[in-house]
Amino acid sequence: MKKINETIAAIKPLDERVMAEAQERQDHLTKPQGSLGRLESLSIQVAGIKGDPRPRIKDKVIFTLAGDHGATQEGVSAYPSEVTPQMVYNFLRGGAGINVLARHVGARVVVADLGVASLLEQHPHLKEKKVALGTQNMAVRPAMSREQAIRSIEAGIELVEEELPMGVDILGTGDMGIGNTTPSSAIAAVMTGTDVPTVTGRGTGLDDEGLERKVRFIRKALEIHRPDPKDPIDILSKVGGFEIGGIVGLILAGARYRVPEVIDGFISGAAALIAASLSPRVRPYLIASHQSVERGHRVILEYLNLKPLLNLDMRLGEGTGAALGIFLAEAAVRILDEMATFAEASVSEKIEE
Amino acid sequence: MKKINETIAAIKPLDERVMAEAQERQDHLTKPQGSLGRLESLSIQVAGIKGDPRPRIKDKVIFTLAGDHGATQEGVSAYPSEVTPQMVYNFLRGGAGINVLARHVGARVVVADLGVASLLEQHPHLKEKKVALGTQNMAVRPAMSREQAIRSIEAGIELVEEELPMGVDILGTGDMGIGNTTPSSAIAAVMTGTDVPTVTGRGTGLDDEGLERKVRFIRKALEIHRPDPKDPIDILSKVGGFEIGGIVGLILAGARYRVPEVIDGFISGAAALIAASLSPRVRPYLIASHQSVERGHRVILEYLNLKPLLNLDMRLGEGTGAALGIFLAEAAVRILDEMATFAEASVSEKIEE
Repeated sequence: MKKINETIAAIKPLDERVMAEAQERQDHLTKPQGSLGRLESLSIQVAGIKGDPRPRIKDKVIFTLAGDHGATQEGVSAYPSEVTPQMVYNFLRGGAGINVLARHVGARVVVADLGVASLLEQHPHLKEKKVALGTQNMAVRPAMSREQAIRSIEAGIELVEEELPMGVDILGTGDMGIGNTTPSSAIAAVMTGTDVPTVTGRGTGLDDEGLERKVRFIRKALEIHRPDPKDPIDILSKVGGFEIGGIVGLILAGARYRVPEVIDGFISGAAALIAASLSPRVRPYLIASHQSVERGHRVILEYLNLKPLLNLDMRLGEGTGAALGIFLAEAAVRILDEMATFAEASVSEKIEE
Repeated sequence: MKKINETIAAIKPLDERVMAEAQERQDHLTKPQGSLGRLESLSIQVAGIKGDPRPRIKDKVIFTLAGDHGATQEGVSAYPSEVTPQMVYNFLRGGAGINVLARHVGARVVVADLGVASLLEQHPHLKEKKVALGTQNMAVRPAMSREQAIRSIEAGIELVEEELPMGVDILGTGDMGIGNTTPSSAIAAVMTGTDVPTVTGRGTGLDDEGLERKVRFIRKALEIHRPDPKDPIDILSKVGGFEIGGIVGLILAGARYRVPEVIDGFISGAAALIAASLSPRVRPYLIASHQSVERGHRVILEYLNLKPLLNLDMRLGEGTGAALGIFLAEAAVRILDEMATFAEASVSEKIEE
């Protein structure tokens, strides 16, 4: 827990002086004030995070963390568990959705095994951070031990720290784990105090019967373990997942190192709930990329008071929404940095009424 | 009118066979079917437009068309008319919002003078298509003659045709014209049958009094000229603008040459209403980039049955929303083209229930 505590202790508020300076420049660019809407506020947020009134974004990193889930033994997913390692290999070959969108936005993808249920072949681009061979079936026993939960978060922190020397101007979070909407729904239910059906969706494509089974399974797990809503590590260990814990670590480390963090969809959102509960100072570092079709995501975003940039009816995960959000954040800071001011361009300002 | 009629006559429906082929591929990519939401449907639309089941987008062009408006004599804008030519020079120097976002998405910007109220200095990158030195004050006389309206549309068609040899895989529409939300509101009111206040907003930043003045002005113009809702050229000539007519031409030509067309905000939306009225075959070629803050835009999008990809509270124009939309369209076709299929990646498909 030492690494987690050190990381949390080092998180500082955004730099308000720099934000005021950035706003001053934004207000004199050659456009009506406010006419670029959320791109303007996003540029101010990134300036405050990075402590730079004209920040630039060059090195973009998307972390895609993989883990497996004992819950899949109970028919809570439309795909078999073996798809998790198959997709990891697909990421490493560059054939998955996240690879295409990361190439499109010029980001590198860091793929990490946090807890896939099989031993993966070594690969120069696969980060080995396996905590265990998948979580336990949480309708029977806790998903993981408290020590494993802590280890998964620390692994996420390590992943960011290992990338810092190569440059990380912005990071995106991503996940791969067959069955991982189930722990995410359980986390969302406990942490936001919402009833299970309101935060439980069809995942990769459950039918009505499968959805009912999933709700019953989550309710059963919560009744058996009664995770403490005030103890985010207790929640992560009893009903979480290794890749979710890893994303918690990414988010804490991103805030510590003043890196703007573009949060993907529902699974990353569940991790953001845990991270923001561990340290409320994390919240202003978060950028919500999109609102997932997965129904619990809206509840999470409202609870964290985050407004998604995009609503494209996506629900793939992997960091695909985060990739698109990174593009918009970069657009925002380029506007702030590259646009001419009224004075520079000799353009007349607004008529005073 | 000959050029317009020839263009309209050459517009064909999308290629449904190709769309079915693209959908077949999309459904076998390594992701749950439909999990990339609107990126998937967008890829199918672009395939149908281009007649290619795996279309690629390389050459991206944003057309930013400038014109002035006699209406500004009546205090309907927060900025003086002189800003129109000043911003044209800003575009040519690369300092405006559209330049930054076009660079960010790798698009070239074609700047054209359709009817700026002053003589602009020649510039190698300024397209000279001036129909007149600004429109007339439409509360006194028609904005332009019927011949000028036709000429402005034909100028837009010419702009696309002149760019085709350099490659136009996708186009974005954009506008610059102090006062041009006023004609756009007038067009929207007539063509959608909506009352004037519902489609009239604050433009670049009118106060309450200015907004009331603008509504009165538009009502007066519509009462004097009574444009025929069934005759889009009559509407354009009586209450339109030269850059709006130019965008109508861009849209007609884009459809003729099977180029996906990313429509910017409110002014481009008003032009899309006219283009879709001239030829209903235009509609499936349109991609709505974003929903503007300018209140009439929502009415236009609903009337055309277009769902915007983004809602970032923008209202700048110039093609800035279109630039972001072009990025998403390119993301969509790259997903379709570059992702591995389940078979290629040896990933297990969904469990049949």
